[in-house]
Amino acid sequence: MSAPAISVFALTGMGEVHPGDDLVALILATGVELAHGDILVVTSKIVSKAEGRYVQAADREEAITAETVRLVASRTYDGHTMRIVENRLGMVSAAAGVDASNTPDGWVLLLPEDPDRSARALAAGLRAATGAEVGVILSDTLGRPWREGQTDVAIGGGGVHMIADLRGTTDQAGKVLSVTTPCVADELAAAADLVKGKASGNPVAVVRGRADLVGPLTLPGASSIVRASERDLFWLGTAEALDQGYRDGYAAALAGLPAHEQQEHEKKDAT
Amino acid sequence: MSAPAISVFALTGMGEVHPGDDLVALILATGVELAHGDILVVTSKIVSKAEGRYVQAADREEAITAETVRLVASRTYDGHTMRIVENRLGMVSAAAGVDASNTPDGWVLLLPEDPDRSARALAAGLRAATGAEVGVILSDTLGRPWREGQTDVAIGGGGVHMIADLRGTTDQAGKVLSVTTPCVADELAAAADLVKGKASGNPVAVVRGRADLVGPLTLPGASSIVRASERDLFWLGTAEALDQGYRDGYAAALAGLPAHEQQEHEKKDAT
Repeated sequence: MSAPAISVFALTGMGEVHPGDDLVALILATGVELAHGDILVVTSKIVSKAEGRYVQAADREEAITAETVRLVASRTYDGHTMRIVENRLGMVSAAAGVDASNTPDGWVLLLPEDPDRSARALAAGLRAATGAEVGVILSDTLGRPWREGQTDVAIGGGGVHMIADLRGTTDQAGKVLSVTTPCVADELAAAADLVKGKASGNPVAVVRGRADLVGPLTLPGASSIVRASERDLFWLGTAEALDQGYRDGYAAALAGLPAHEQQEHEKKDAT
Repeated sequence: MSAPAISVFALTGMGEVHPGDDLVALILATGVELAHGDILVVTSKIVSKAEGRYVQAADREEAITAETVRLVASRTYDGHTMRIVENRLGMVSAAAGVDASNTPDGWVLLLPEDPDRSARALAAGLRAATGAEVGVILSDTLGRPWREGQTDVAIGGGGVHMIADLRGTTDQAGKVLSVTTPCVADELAAAADLVKGKASGNPVAVVRGRADLVGPLTLPGASSIVRASERDLFWLGTAEALDQGYRDGYAAALAGLPAHEQQEHEKKDAT
């Protein structure tokens, strides 16, 4: 058996993307020869640009507020407040994906309106133009709790399995792998970032060698890997939760409630 | 300029690893020809096995308790309690890295005692044996807040840059990329998982094409990408923080303290 292997390469020479541009045409104009099972990882920013997702904003903070459904946590450093928020897609991230880098002064760029729809449309267009069954992932760069630095993750998917479900398969010792559900979509986005780079201006990479992950355009998109906040153990920042609990406990004591009544109520909210 | 590209391939035929085994010899026995700048991503479990990190445990929960420095969050599903904990390395993860899969009944496997030291020793051994300046990352599989599924991340590093620091470089529009610090170590681990797979029994993969990330063995290891809990906005689970705040607020009201005194104190703790 030959060793499992993938190759990952960036497409060069795409140039700047403008509102209304046809990304299928721009990608194919690079001369890339797409093969069955290729997975294209596309920086979501160029999809936003093609979709004209620019908004004029006096400052970026204003645009972040407009994109925010729920504030999860915030902290002020050096007079600047960093906000972790849940956006309209249910994604939790810093700044709601509002991007002020690589944009003209006074303008910010929002995430694609529906990243899964955009990814499916791009995959459909590339399949139609080339005859090759390819998949598309839209990537964004996110920080994360507990670990320094950022990694690229999948925020949109078309024609690619997001999770390789191994539950029920057995390991080498014959035990059932009960909890292993690798998020291959995020791993593909991370692998692609190793060749795209942030400063190189190559917004598209191809991952070749995992055709088994490519399938029909009806596969669930990246919205399926966003965990609903009511199921998450970290749905609210620690300082915010301590404050909210404190206020509730203080009020409960003043109202003469027994010590644990409100606490149980909060637990139910958090479940 | 040729397109930036990497190849990632798994080493096949390594067989089961036993306590005392020489991983340098086992890796080279696969016949792999290592080149300057190759980065080997090694599943930490085989390092644990070679280091004999087995402990007899009546159940896995007991071993997790022994490895836990601090409980971050927990939740009970179907009568089973899942614990997110900080381990002695400062890493926050489910189950403190205690592994009961691929182990004999009645035994569990702990993480390597010092994953960075193990990674450096392996890199040093491979460099000495081959003359090729290679890097080593030890990987583990972790879940994460807000997103479904797990990804492989770096828990040990030897001779590889963990973070590609782009701060101060400029983007295509000439703006300074002030906050972009990609955690390439985690991205390398993720890319490698795409060829290793959980069920395939290929615990080592090579990433070729990012020799720029390989350097001296004195480079910081993966401990440098573990964020200190006092700097993290999610150092305690939401339900746990609501409970703690509630108790503090209730007690403060009973003691006749003003409403915000304890709250400010908690905020300081969380900073």
